[in-house]
Amino acid sequence: MNSDSIRKLFRQVHQGTLSPEEAVERLRHLPFEDLGFAKVDHHRALRNGMPEVIFGKGKTPDQVAGIFANLAKHGGNILATRTTEDQFQAVKQLVPRSEYRVLGRAIVLKRDRKKYGKGPIAVVSAGTSDIPVAEEALVTAELMGNDVQHLYDVGVAGIHRLLANCAALAKARVVIVCAGMEGALPSVVGGLVGVPVIAVPTSIGYGAAFEGIAALLGMMNSCASNVSVVNIDNGFGAGYVASLINRL
Amino acid sequence: MNSDSIRKLFRQVHQGTLSPEEAVERLRHLPFEDLGFAKVDHHRALRNGMPEVIFGKGKTPDQVAGIFANLAKHGGNILATRTTEDQFQAVKQLVPRSEYRVLGRAIVLKRDRKKYGKGPIAVVSAGTSDIPVAEEALVTAELMGNDVQHLYDVGVAGIHRLLANCAALAKARVVIVCAGMEGALPSVVGGLVGVPVIAVPTSIGYGAAFEGIAALLGMMNSCASNVSVVNIDNGFGAGYVASLINRL
Amino acid sequence: MNSDSIRKLFRQVHQGTLSPEEAVERLRHLPFEDLGFAKVDHHRALRNGMPEVIFGKGKTPDQVAGIFANLAKHGGNILATRTTEDQFQAVKQLVPRSEYRVLGRAIVLKRDRKKYGKGPIAVVSAGTSDIPVAEEALVTAELMGNDVQHLYDVGVAGIHRLLANCAALAKARVVIVCAGMEGALPSVVGGLVGVPVIAVPTSIGYGAAFEGIAALLGMMNSCASNVSVVNIDNGFGAGYVASLINRL
Amino acid sequence: MNSDSIRKLFRQVHQGTLSPEEAVERLRHLPFEDLGFAKVDHHRALRNGMPEVIFGKGKTPDQVAGIFANLAKHGGNILATRTTEDQFQAVKQLVPRSEYRVLGRAIVLKRDRKKYGKGPIAVVSAGTSDIPVAEEALVTAELMGNDVQHLYDVGVAGIHRLLANCAALAKARVVIVCAGMEGALPSVVGGLVGVPVIAVPTSIGYGAAFEGIAALLGMMNSCASNVSVVNIDNGFGAGYVASLINRL
Amino acid sequence: MNSDSIRKLFRQVHQGTLSPEEAVERLRHLPFEDLGFAKVDHHRALRNGMPEVIFGKGKTPDQVAGIFANLAKHGGNILATRTTEDQFQAVKQLVPRSEYRVLGRAIVLKRDRKKYGKGPIAVVSAGTSDIPVAEEALVTAELMGNDVQHLYDVGVAGIHRLLANCAALAKARVVIVCAGMEGALPSVVGGLVGVPVIAVPTSIGYGAAFEGIAALLGMMNSCASNVSVVNIDNGFGAGYVASLINRL
Amino acid sequence: MNSDSIRKLFRQVHQGTLSPEEAVERLRHLPFEDLGFAKVDHHRALRNGMPEVIFGKGKTPDQVAGIFANLAKHGGNILATRTTEDQFQAVKQLVPRSEYRVLGRAIVLKRDRKKYGKGPIAVVSAGTSDIPVAEEALVTAELMGNDVQHLYDVGVAGIHRLLANCAALAKARVVIVCAGMEGALPSVVGGLVGVPVIAVPTSIGYGAAFEGIAALLGMMNSCASNVSVVNIDNGFGAGYVASLINRL
Amino acid sequence: MNSDSIRKLFRQVHQGTLSPEEAVERLRHLPFEDLGFAKVDHHRALRNGMPEVIFGKGKTPDQVAGIFANLAKHGGNILATRTTEDQFQAVKQLVPRSEYRVLGRAIVLKRDRKKYGKGPIAVVSAGTSDIPVAEEALVTAELMGNDVQHLYDVGVAGIHRLLANCAALAKARVVIVCAGMEGALPSVVGGLVGVPVIAVPTSIGYGAAFEGIAALLGMMNSCASNVSVVNIDNGFGAGYVASLINRL
Amino acid sequence: MNSDSIRKLFRQVHQGTLSPEEAVERLRHLPFEDLGFAKVDHHRALRNGMPEVIFGKGKTPDQVAGIFANLAKHGGNILATRTTEDQFQAVKQLVPRSEYRVLGRAIVLKRDRKKYGKGPIAVVSAGTSDIPVAEEALVTAELMGNDVQHLYDVGVAGIHRLLANCAALAKARVVIVCAGMEGALPSVVGGLVGVPVIAVPTSIGYGAAFEGIAALLGMMNSCASNVSVVNIDNGFGAGYVASLINRL
Repeated sequence: MNSDSIRKLFRQVHQGTLSPEEAVERLRHLPFEDLGFAKVDHHRALRNGMPEVIFGKGKTPDQVAGIFANLAKHGGNILATRTTEDQFQAVKQLVPRSEYRVLGRAIVLKRDRKKYGKGPIAVVSAGTSDIPVAEEALVTAELMGNDVQHLYDVGVAGIHRLLANCAALAKARVVIVCAGMEGALPSVVGGLVGVPVIAVPTSIGYGAAFEGIAALLGMMNSCASNVSVVNIDNGFGAGYVASLINRL
Repeated sequence: MNSDSIRKLFRQVHQGTLSPEEAVERLRHLPFEDLGFAKVDHHRALRNGMPEVIFGKGKTPDQVAGIFANLAKHGGNILATRTTEDQFQAVKQLVPRSEYRVLGRAIVLKRDRKKYGKGPIAVVSAGTSDIPVAEEALVTAELMGNDVQHLYDVGVAGIHRLLANCAALAKARVVIVCAGMEGALPSVVGGLVGVPVIAVPTSIGYGAAFEGIAALLGMMNSCASNVSVVNIDNGFGAGYVASLINRL
Repeated sequence: MNSDSIRKLFRQVHQGTLSPEEAVERLRHLPFEDLGFAKVDHHRALRNGMPEVIFGKGKTPDQVAGIFANLAKHGGNILATRTTEDQFQAVKQLVPRSEYRVLGRAIVLKRDRKKYGKGPIAVVSAGTSDIPVAEEALVTAELMGNDVQHLYDVGVAGIHRLLANCAALAKARVVIVCAGMEGALPSVVGGLVGVPVIAVPTSIGYGAAFEGIAALLGMMNSCASNVSVVNIDNGFGAGYVASLINRL
Repeated sequence: MNSDSIRKLFRQVHQGTLSPEEAVERLRHLPFEDLGFAKVDHHRALRNGMPEVIFGKGKTPDQVAGIFANLAKHGGNILATRTTEDQFQAVKQLVPRSEYRVLGRAIVLKRDRKKYGKGPIAVVSAGTSDIPVAEEALVTAELMGNDVQHLYDVGVAGIHRLLANCAALAKARVVIVCAGMEGALPSVVGGLVGVPVIAVPTSIGYGAAFEGIAALLGMMNSCASNVSVVNIDNGFGAGYVASLINRL
Repeated sequence: MNSDSIRKLFRQVHQGTLSPEEAVERLRHLPFEDLGFAKVDHHRALRNGMPEVIFGKGKTPDQVAGIFANLAKHGGNILATRTTEDQFQAVKQLVPRSEYRVLGRAIVLKRDRKKYGKGPIAVVSAGTSDIPVAEEALVTAELMGNDVQHLYDVGVAGIHRLLANCAALAKARVVIVCAGMEGALPSVVGGLVGVPVIAVPTSIGYGAAFEGIAALLGMMNSCASNVSVVNIDNGFGAGYVASLINRL
Repeated sequence: MNSDSIRKLFRQVHQGTLSPEEAVERLRHLPFEDLGFAKVDHHRALRNGMPEVIFGKGKTPDQVAGIFANLAKHGGNILATRTTEDQFQAVKQLVPRSEYRVLGRAIVLKRDRKKYGKGPIAVVSAGTSDIPVAEEALVTAELMGNDVQHLYDVGVAGIHRLLANCAALAKARVVIVCAGMEGALPSVVGGLVGVPVIAVPTSIGYGAAFEGIAALLGMMNSCASNVSVVNIDNGFGAGYVASLINRL
Repeated sequence: MNSDSIRKLFRQVHQGTLSPEEAVERLRHLPFEDLGFAKVDHHRALRNGMPEVIFGKGKTPDQVAGIFANLAKHGGNILATRTTEDQFQAVKQLVPRSEYRVLGRAIVLKRDRKKYGKGPIAVVSAGTSDIPVAEEALVTAELMGNDVQHLYDVGVAGIHRLLANCAALAKARVVIVCAGMEGALPSVVGGLVGVPVIAVPTSIGYGAAFEGIAALLGMMNSCASNVSVVNIDNGFGAGYVASLINRL
Repeated sequence: MNSDSIRKLFRQVHQGTLSPEEAVERLRHLPFEDLGFAKVDHHRALRNGMPEVIFGKGKTPDQVAGIFANLAKHGGNILATRTTEDQFQAVKQLVPRSEYRVLGRAIVLKRDRKKYGKGPIAVVSAGTSDIPVAEEALVTAELMGNDVQHLYDVGVAGIHRLLANCAALAKARVVIVCAGMEGALPSVVGGLVGVPVIAVPTSIGYGAAFEGIAALLGMMNSCASNVSVVNIDNGFGAGYVASLINRL
C-alpha cells in the first residue's frame, strides 16, 4: 500500500504551498491505488499465519521450484497443492527443508508452528479413493495452524464404522467430510455432530457419478442443516474454510 | 389366443385333404397371431394373485369408475394408483366395497387375501413428505399378497432413529427405501441388511434437488451393492418388484 | 432414552439371579434403543438456544397453527419458514405473542433472547428480489441468538455500493451472501473479508439462470477460498450454519 | 467385536465392587464399539458364500496381487473385478490356482462350489460390445453360487433372436439385462418374463448416448413394471443383487 | 414472383433508350425479389397437395377462425393443429364444412381428396397416452393425400401385441412410431420393417422421463439403422416427412 | 458524492490544528464513500440520454405507477419493461403522457428525442412469436435515441424473405437478431452484414427447444464471427448493448 | 430357420400316429424358433443390395480383416466404417480388390454395381471439418446403389455459396445435411428443397458445442418441416435412411 | 463477382439478336452466381483491413505452412490461431517475416499497419490461466488495426487490483473480459465502464466449472446490461467483434 502521494499532499498544504481546495481537487484525480484503500484491508490482520499457496497442476517442476524458492525468502508456511514427486524433487534442490506429503500430493515448508485454531478439526472420508482429497484438506488445515485428526474409510454402507468413532468426532470444532459416489456421508455426519460440517464432493465413482456431480447434488440437498459445500475435489478450499472457522 | 386356423390345418392333414408339405407351407403364411405364441406366456402362471392396475392420473372420476367397475366383474384384486378423493367417490358409487387409502392415494378392492409373499416386506422412508410414495409402494405390495411393515421418518441426518429399528429391518425379506433430497437412505439401509433393497427416489426437495434427480443419482451411485433403483416417485414399481422377489 | 432394561440386568447380576456371562448374552439381544446410544448425543449440549423449526410450505394454516401451538408449550424460540399471511393468522389465534416477519416469510415466537453468537453476522444480498431469501437467513440467525446486520442491493454491477459499506462488513464474524443471476457477489465479498462466507444461490433470474443453477455453479467455482455454499434459496440453512460458526 | 469391557462391568457388579447404578453410568460412557453393536449384524448370517471382492481399476499389479494373496489365506471365493492381464500375471505368481476370466475382466479364485442360488440366473445382453459388462455380472453371480446362463447379442432391432430364446429365459428365477445405446432391451425382456429383471445400462454407444445416460434414462422409464436398475456398467452390482434375490 | 422490372429493362435496351452497360448497373440495384430468384423455387412444383397449416396453440378462437376462413377462400386442404373444441366452434361458424378430429386435436377442411402418396403409411404408438401425438401425425398424413393405418397401444413390454400385427406393418411404405417413457418402440419396429421409420418422442412419462428427453435420447441412439427422429411431440413434422417420402 | 470530511481534513492541516501524519492516519479510517471514489465514474458522462428503467414483472400496478411517477419528476426518458395493460392503466393515471407499446409490453415516457445513435439499428426476428422480444429490443433502442428499423418473420427456412431485404440490412450500423427454436438466424444474418450482430435467443419452441437453450447454444456456436449473445428473451439487454455501440 | 419339428408333426398326423388335437398341443410347447417366424421377414426382400456392414472402431486390424474376408466369401458389397489406414492394410492382404476411402474412413468392396436408388442423393456439409461424416454418408449411399453428389463447405454464414448451388440441390430426391457448431444448415436447406432432408449433427466445434449437442438440439428444433435427424456423427445411419427412401 | 453472362444478354438484346422476352427467360435459368448477387455484398467494403484467418488446431505443420504461404502471396495481414511452436517453425521456413506470439498461440504476418479502430480496446482477464484466451483476443484485435491494452490477473476476489486500474479501463472504447471459474469479472467491469463489454468464458477451472459452462452461464446472466457473450475460449471471436465495433 502506497500512500506517499497522499502524504505529500498534506505536507504541501501544511507548508502552505497548496490550498485545501487545490488539494481536494488533486486528490480527486489521483490514481486509485494512491488513495490507500485502507478500509478494504481491515481483515488482513486476521490473515496472520496464512500460508502462501501455489497451485502445482500444469506447472513444470522448474516453475514450481522457482516460485516456491522465491516465497521461501520470506517467513511463514508455504503450501504447493496438486504437485507431483518430480515437482518436489525440483523444490527440494532449492529448498532442502521442504517436505512432500505423498497422500495429499502437497509440497510443504512448515516454519510457523503456532496453533491458530482453537480446537481440533476432524477430516472424514468415505472410501480409500477419497483420501487424496481428504489429505489435501488435512495438510491445508495443518499448515494454517490447526490440530487435525482424520477418520477414513467410514462410508455410509458400513455405518457401524462411523458410529464406532463418534467419540472422536464429538471433540471436533469443525468437521470436513469428503465423499464421492452418492455423497451421503456429510448428511450422516451432520446429524451426529453439532458443529459446522464442510462437505467436499469428490470425483470418485463411475457411470452416473458424472465426475462428482452426483455427490455434489447430494451434498447441496443434505437433510442436515449444518452442512455447507465447496467445489468438487476442492480439499484445499475445505481446509481453508475450516481453518477460518476454527480461528474465530 | 386363437389357434383355430392351426387346428384346421391339422384336421385337413388328418383327413388327407392336405399333404404335410402343403401344411407347413400354409403355416408359414399364417398371420402371426394364429401361431398361438404360447411360449411367451410360460410365465403367466406366476401372475396369479397379481392385481389389475389402473393409473388414475389424468382420468376423470367417471373414467376411473367405469374401468374399475368393469374390472370388478372378474375376480382378484384391483388397484387404482395416483387417484383423488373425487375419483374414489365415483368408484364407491359403482363398487361399494372399494376402499380409499388416503396416504397412498390409492383406490383398492381387496378380494384375494391369500399370502403370496414368503416373508415380510419393509417399506422405509426418509421424511414425512416421502410418505405418499412409500404408501403407494406399501399398498401395491399388500394387494399383491404380502405382509408389509413400514418404518417412516428415519432420514440419515438422525441416524439413531434408523438404528433403533434395526431389529425390525432385519426380519424383512425385501426392503423398499423411499427418499428425496440427497437420497442417501438406501445406502445406509443397504449396509444394514443382507437382502435386496429397492430404492425409490422421490421428487421431494427444492433447489438443486431438481425434482428428484439428485436423489436418483445418489441412489444409482450407492456404495451398497444390494441396491437397485426404480423411477422417481415410482412407488408402484417398487412394490411390484419387491412382491415378485418375495414370491420366489 | 430408556435404559430401564439395562438397569434391570445389572440389578439381577447384583442380586445373583443372573451370571455375568448370561447378562452379556442378554445385552447382546436387547433392542438397540435400550442400549442407550448415549455417545451419539454428546453434541446435544451445543444445541441450547436452537429454535424449533417448522417448514410451512405445503401445510394448511390449521396444520401450521397446530404444530406451532404444540411446540409453544415448551420453552425456547419457534421459527416457521416459508409461511403465508394466512398461516400466520391461524397461528396468531392460538399463540397471540407470535409475530410475522413479512420479508422473510417467517412466523416467529421469540422467547429466549440470550446472545449465543459471539459477534455480528452480516447478511448481504445482490438485488431486491433476493431479499426474501436474505431475510429468511436473517431471521434464522436472529432466533438462534445472534446480532445480525443486513446490507442489501449491493450487486456486483455497482461495485461502489458494496465498497462504500466495507467498514460494516469488516466487523462481521461470519458473512452470509445471497445472490441470483450470475451469483458473483460471494466471490467479491469473499475477497474483501477474512472470515467465513456462506453463499446462498437464489432462484432469481430468467432464461439461462435456470432457476438458480447459474448462481449455484458460480458460487461452487468461487475464486475466493473462504466461500462455502448451501442449496438454492436455502436461507434457513445459511442462517443455521452461520449461527453454529458464530457460537464457537 | 470386543465386549471385554462390558463383561468386566458385570463381573464387578457380581463381585459387589460396583453398584448397579454406577455400572449403568459407566456403560453410558463406554466407547461405542465396546457396546457390541450386535443387532446390526443380524443379517451377517445371510452372507455365507459371499466372495471377497477387490476393485482392480487404478491399482498396480503388485497391489492387486498383495490384497488377493492376503484374502486367499482365509476360505471362500475371491473376485477381483475390472482387472487386466498384467494384474492377473502378478496374482498368478502368488496364488497359482487363481484364474482369469478374459471376457469379464475378472480374476477369480473359486473354492466354495456350493449352490446358494435356488434356480438359474439368466444374463442377457444387447450387443457384442456389452459383453464385458454382462460377463462381469455372470462371473459375480457364479462366484456367489448360482447357475448362470447367458444369452448375448439379442438386441431389440432383431427381436426374433430374442423371441427364439424365450424358452431359456422362461426358466430363469432372476434375469440380468445389459444394454447400451437406447437401453430398450430390459423393457422387452421385462414384458416376456414374470420374474425380477435387473437392468444394467452400459456406456456403449456414441454421440447422444452420452456414455450410458441415454440407456440409463431408458431403463429408469421402462414400461415394464418388473425392472429395477443399477449404475452404468455396474455388472458386479447386478450380479450381486440377482444373487441375493436368488438365495431367498 | 414479379419480373416486370427486369422485363422493362430489356425492353428499354431493345428500344435503345438504355445502353447495355447502364442496364447492368440498374440490375445491380434492383430489389432482390425482382431478380426473379427462380432457381430457389424449382421444387415448388412438388408442393401440390400440401395443405395450408395453422399452429393453433396460443391463439384465441377468433384468431384461429379468422385465419382459417381466410385460407378457405383458396382451394386445397387446411389443417389447424393443437386446437381446442372452443377454437373449432369459432371456425365452424365461418367455415361450416370444417371438421374437428378430437383425438388429434386438429381442425381440418378436406377438399383435395386426391391420393399423392404411393402406398400406405402406418402410424404406430406405444401407449394410450401417446395417441394425441400419433393422431396429429395421422391427420397430417391424411390431409397430404395418404392412406394411413394406425396400430396403437403396442408398447414393447407386451411385444406379442406388436408381433401379432406384423403383417399390417409389412405393407407400409413408411412407418411413423410415437413413444414416450423409454422410447424403445422405434428400435423394435425398425428391426421388423425394411422401410424408413420416422420416430416421434412424446412427453409422456414422469420422473426421469424429463418431458420426453429420455425418449428422444433413446430414439437418437436406436440400434435400428432405418430410424430418424423429429422433435418431442412433433406429430405434425412426422406426418409431413412421411408424406414427402411417400410421394417419391 | 460527499467529500466534505476530506475537505475538512485539509483545512485542519492548513490551519495547523492537525499534522500531516495525523491527517493521513485519519484518512485511512474514513468510510469509503468519503474518499470520493471519483475515478470509477469517469464514464458517467457517456450515460447522457440513458433512460431510467423499471422491470415490471412481479410488481403490482400500483408499485409500477409509483416508481414511474417518481422517476418522471426528473427529466429524461422512462422505460418500464415486461409490463401489462393493467400496469399501464395505473401509470396513465399518474403520468398522462406515458404510452403503452403493446407488442413490446413496455410503458414509455419519451421526452428526450435527441438522436444519440449515429446510424440505424436493425431488429430482425425469425418468427411471429419472437416479436415481443424483438419489440422490447426495439423500444429500448428507440428510447436511447436511435433510429430503429425492424424486419420480422424472416426465419431461415424461407431464406428468400431475408435475402429480399438485404438492402435494408446493409444500411444498419448494428443488427439485433431474435430467434427461438434452432436459433440459426444470427449466423445467416452475420454472414450477410459486416457490422456487429447482437443475438437474442428466445424461449419460443417446444420439446427439445428447452425454453431457449437450443437457441442459446446455437448462437454461442455461430459460425459467423461477428455475433455475440445476450440472455434468453433479453430484448432489453440487446437494445442496450446495440445503443452503446451505436453511440461510439 | 428350422421347421423340421413342425414338418415331423404334420407327418405324424398324416400317418395317423398323432391326433390333430395332440398335434396342436405339442405345437404349443415347441421352442419358438421351430415355429418358423416367417411373417417377420416379409420385408427381407427389400434388403437386396444392402451391403454387409462392419463397425471398425475398437477392432484390431486383424479382427477387421478376418471379418471382412469372411463376408467376402459371399456376394454383395461390404462396407467397414470408422476404419484406419492400418486396418485397411490388413484387409488388403486378404481381399486385394478392397479399396480405402480416405475421407470417409471406410474400407469398401464394391461388387454389386446395380442402381437401386431412383434418383440422385445430395450430401451437403457445412464446414471442411464435417467432411469425414459427410463422406461416411456418401460412401454408404453409394454402396447401397445410389448416385450421390456432394456439396461441401456451404455453411450458413456464407449463404451465397449455398444459393449458388441451388440448382444441384433441386435435382436430389433425398438430401443429407451434415453440420456441427450451431447445426443451422439443415433448416436453410430444408427451406430450399421440397424433398426429405436427413440431418446429421457432427461433433465439430468447441466450448458450448458440447460434442454435437448444440447441433443436435438445433436440428431437432428445425423450423423446416421436412427435416428428421439421426445421431451425432452418424453418417452411416443417414446414408442408410436416405438409401431406403430413394428405393421407394 | 462475375456478371459477364448478364452483360452478354443485354448486348444481344441491344444488337437485336435476342428478343427481350427470350432474354428474361434465359436470365431465369442462369446459374445463381451469374445473377450477381450484388445486394448481399454491400458490406464487403467494410472488410478492408480484415486479416485472413487460419484455424491451426488439428492441422499438420506442413498444412498450416502451405495455407499460410499461399495467403501471403496477396497483401494484408495473416493470423493463424491455436497454433504450436512446431507449426510456426514450418511457416517460418516459407514466410520468414512471420512471427510467433507465444502467449496467444498465434502465428502472424503483419503488413497492414493502418489504424482502423477509432480508440483503444482493453483486454481484461481474471487469472493467469486465462491469459492464452485473452492474448488470442488481443492479437486478433491488433491485426485488425487497433490499439490494444491489457489488464491481466484482476480477478474479482481481489477487487482492489481491478479498481486500481479503473483509469486505464475508462479510456477504452470497447472492453473484452476473459474469465473462467465463476465468470464474474464481466459483471464487475460492466458496472465500471459505460462502453460495450464482450465477455469470453474460458474453460479454466475444475469440478463444477464443467469446462467453462459455469462461466458461460454466469456471463449470460450478467446483471450489467452492457455485456454480450461469445463462445467458451473464443478469444478470436471477441477480438473480431470488438474490432468491428471499434471501427464504427
